[in-house]
Parts: sequence; C-alpha cells; structure tokens
Amino acid sequence: MNRPTIAITLGDMNGISPFIALKSHKEIKNFVNPIYITNRKVMNEASKKLNLSLESDFSIYDVGKEFKIEEGKVTKESGELSFISFKEGVEMAKRGEVEAVVTLPINKEAWSVAGISYKGHTEALEDFFKREAIMMIGCEKLFGAFFTHHIPLKDVPRKIIPERLIPFFLNFYKNIKAEKIAILGLNPHGGDNGVMGKEELKIESAIREANKIVGREVFFGPLVPDTAFTPKSRENFNYFIAMYHDQGLIPLKALYFEESINLSLNLPIIRTSVDHGTAYDKAYKSENISCSSYINAVKEAKRFIFKHI
Amino acid sequence: MNRPTIAITLGDMNGISPFIALKSHKEIKNFVNPIYITNRKVMNEASKKLNLSLESDFSIYDVGKEFKIEEGKVTKESGELSFISFKEGVEMAKRGEVEAVVTLPINKEAWSVAGISYKGHTEALEDFFKREAIMMIGCEKLFGAFFTHHIPLKDVPRKIIPERLIPFFLNFYKNIKAEKIAILGLNPHGGDNGVMGKEELKIESAIREANKIVGREVFFGPLVPDTAFTPKSRENFNYFIAMYHDQGLIPLKALYFEESINLSLNLPIIRTSVDHGTAYDKAYKSENISCSSYINAVKEAKRFIFKHI
Repeated sequence: MNRPTIAITLGDMNGISPFIALKSHKEIKNFVNPIYITNRKVMNEASKKLNLSLESDFSIYDVGKEFKIEEGKVTKESGELSFISFKEGVEMAKRGEVEAVVTLPINKEAWSVAGISYKGHTEALEDFFKREAIMMIGCEKLFGAFFTHHIPLKDVPRKIIPERLIPFFLNFYKNIKAEKIAILGLNPHGGDNGVMGKEELKIESAIREANKIVGREVFFGPLVPDTAFTPKSRENFNYFIAMYHDQGLIPLKALYFEESINLSLNLPIIRTSVDHGTAYDKAYKSENISCSSYINAVKEAKRFIFKHI
Repeated sequence: MNRPTIAITLGDMNGISPFIALKSHKEIKNFVNPIYITNRKVMNEASKKLNLSLESDFSIYDVGKEFKIEEGKVTKESGELSFISFKEGVEMAKRGEVEAVVTLPINKEAWSVAGISYKGHTEALEDFFKREAIMMIGCEKLFGAFFTHHIPLKDVPRKIIPERLIPFFLNFYKNIKAEKIAILGLNPHGGDNGVMGKEELKIESAIREANKIVGREVFFGPLVPDTAFTPKSRENFNYFIAMYHDQGLIPLKALYFEESINLSLNLPIIRTSVDHGTAYDKAYKSENISCSSYINAVKEAKRFIFKHI
C-alpha cells in the first residue's frame, strides 16, 4: 500500500503528454504504480518519434483506435482517443481498480471536432457524477479554491451570500481536512469596516456559522486580500478560499507557476491534473518541457489517497 | 550631482521610523545627501532610547515642538510633528531646496487626534497641489499602478471607460517614461472574447487610442490577469497598470513584500515612501525591523530625479 495504483490518462497524443509521461515514468514509479490509459499503438509511435523508449514496466491499458500522430494538430482521432482514455480512467476509479486518476491535458478543440460537447475534464466529471466539483489549484505550499469561477467580475459581488458560502466552506473542509483554512475578503482592505464594500460582513457571518457547524475554528478571515499572500501570511496558511478566479490564481501563478496542479474535489473519486495545456507548439519538437506540474499531480494524488483512508 | 539632496520626513516619532532612519543613515549617505526633517530634541531622545548614536553628519532640519516620546502610542504631539515635518519637506521640494521627498510612515489616528483631517500623505499631497496623484507601488523588478483604488469591487467595472482610461495611461507614461507598459484586463481569462465580461473591449480600444497619441506601441494588453504576473510575463514587463487595487497589490505583496515602496506620480515634486506603517508594536522594542523598503524608497527617489533631468 505504499505505492498506490493510479490511472494516468494520456490526454491528447498530438500534444506534449506522451513526452511528459515517458520522461517521468522512472521517477513516479518510485511512489505510485501507474497504469497508462491510451492506445498502445499510438503510444508506440509516440515513443519512437520522441526517441524515448517504452520501458517494460510501462503498463498500458489499451483503449481506442490506432491513428497516425499529427504533431501539434487538432484532429478528430486525437480528440476521440483522449476522451475515451479519460472516461476509462474515471470508470476504473469508480470500479475501485485504481485509487486515483491523474489526467494529462486534452485539447478542447479536438474534443469539439470529435463531437464531444464538454468544454473540459471538469465539466465532464460534473456530468458523470451529477454534482458540482470544487476546483483547487496550487502546490503543497499553497492551494487555492475559488468560490466563483468563470463569470464576469461584475457578477461576483452578488454571489457572496452566506447561503452559498457556508456549504462551499463545509464541502471544501470535508474534502481537504486541513487544520486551518484562510477565507479571503472581497474588497480593498477587506472593506475597511464596511466603508469600501459590505460583502465582508456576509463572509464573516458565513465563517462564524461554518465554524459553529464544524465545532471548532477551522475557517479564518475574511483576510485582507492584498496581504493574504505575503510570505508571513503564507506561513500561517496553506489553503485559501478566494472569492473570485483571479484573486486566487494571480498569486498562485506569480509564485508557483510551474509546480501548480489542479485537483477536483467534492467527487466520489480522486482526480488530479496538470495545470497546463497540450502545448502543441512544443510537441515532438522541443525538450524544453517542464514535468514539475505532472509529477506534483501524481504526488498530490497519492497524498489525497492517504488522506482519505 | 551624483548625490542629490533629498528631504526625509521622519513621520511618527512614536513608531519605528527613527530606528529605520538611524540604522540606514550610513548606507543612504553613499548615494544621496539626506536632510532629516523632524524636531531635533525629539530625535535626540529617540537616538538615546534606541542606543543608536546620532552621527555628526546626520543633518536635521529642525521643526515643530519638543515632546516626550511615548513608545507605540497614538498622541496628539506625534501626530502634529509628523504633519509639520511632512509639510515642510514638501515645501522644501517646491522651493527647489531638495530634489525629492522620502516620507517615513505617519499614523492616521495620530493625525486625526491632532486635528489633521487628511487620511494620509497622498490625500494631503493631492490637496496641496490641487491635482490627482497616481500611486505606483513596487520595486525595480515590478511596479504597479492602479486605475481604481479605494472603492468597493462592485463599483470597479463601471469605471472602466476609455474616456478615463486614456488620460490615465498617458499620464502614467509621461511620468515614468517606460518603453513598455502592461495593461491588465478585468475579467477571468481577459473575458474570453467577451464571453465573461466586455470591459476588455473598452480597455483594448483605450490602449489603441493611447498608443496612437504617443505615436508608438507603449501600452500592451489587455493581459489575461491570472498569467500577467508569471515569471515569464515579468520578464517582458516591469510596469503594470492594474484595473483595481488588489489585482496589482496581491502579486506585488506576494512577491516583493519587504522591498516594495510607494511613489506618488503626476505631481510637481518627486515623492517616494516606504510601503509599511508605523509598526507601533515593534517601536523601541525590537531590532527585527526591515529597512529594505526605506532604502529602496531612497534609491527610487534618486532614480526618478535622474529620469526627470
């Protein structure tokens, strides 16, 4: 049980994921037992093109149909295979054959060309499980979850209501079981006692209520946003709930761009993901590709497996 | 002319500024000729309390009345002296006796107790000169200016109009004369072509217009906010205009908390300032006080003097 079995879905084979998977295999074998989900023949072709050998312990779970890799191109075939591979990984996790799924990037356009209507992994997961996922992005040093996501900034303030904040806080806590969770304010200086916005009063009341439900002080804040991510504040907290997309992502990407990964919380399975795309411009051309986000995604998957046991 | 003469206003004498000024005197003498504006007797008392000697070349411009230092306390006397010292520094700059003013922190409450109605240095400066200042915060590696400041987040989107953006961009450029200035978008992913907010279209048109007026491409953007401050993006730009307070301050304080300083642009004088407060809790007690922000404020004052000659 020291090396949990995890499914790695290879994502778009015309992009950089075969390179990342092959390059990092030896390293991740040290702490997990990976099963790579893709088409064996396509993977063989990728390994030849990349001049990176397929080790004998590189276990492939063979899915989908063979096709010819078109380096850095949007194709129906790569879209199809990346979706099948992802779906199969999730199924294996549901059946308990693997303890987590780590996803390599898919190309949204390729999904669309292949007739797959989801905009991405998360939307698909929410549909598979019929429930809302909580996205958490970051690395061990700093994780951020976002109370609101892909909505215009002007629509954020009216979403800040205790009835929505409280269940979000509690779900997040249930999933990550952290000792302390920092909750951000919304306005400059945290509203300066209501002078520059009143949403903090609602956040404060939600924090109070959520702590009462948990039965101890887990949620702290609302923190003044501009000082929430200073080195000193980061010594106090590793988990932050931001009120909007950029409030959390700006400091995360400023500080830990390459290491960051993506976790889908609030689902019946554990799923982590790299925090980058298919990088078609580099695929099968450049070796200047960072594997940090991928390796961290695998590490975090393992960490979350043990957290949930 | 290698060591310009600058006024240093000592700020609140019950706080940490006497420590910072005494501790850094030797270092800043290397590149500027400082004139310290405060009350000589109060400064003498501070030096004794701190056990830091007043060097013979520590030139004091004597103002205000003597009073007894009350360590870490809000007092009318310290409020009064800090205002007089600030006002005199500005006057000296107006009269051309010094080439810049560097301000150490005042305490707003102490100003209020002393019957001074301004909320801080910047508000006072805007009243002295009857014009709006542009605040720029940061350090040599990263400077940010803020198109909107101390207003609730919900009021930000409606302020984003070309008629206000264009003069702001141009004033900023006139003051800092940078080769390239990054302008941030407002919404997640920069609005994703209008799907998540339309303010980027206005920012884009303001950029186009402002570049036309300057006669070359100075303003770039709107940048997607979450990737604007990644290491790679920061290689391209040192000057950023954020659409709102926290969009710029969050990454600045996450990355360069201790080094950051404050500049007031768009005024007839050069004024820089530390980016921290009076730290009453540490005053006359702790030696664990960083002088980086102060030393950088002095350096930047010098850099701006030469930029304007």
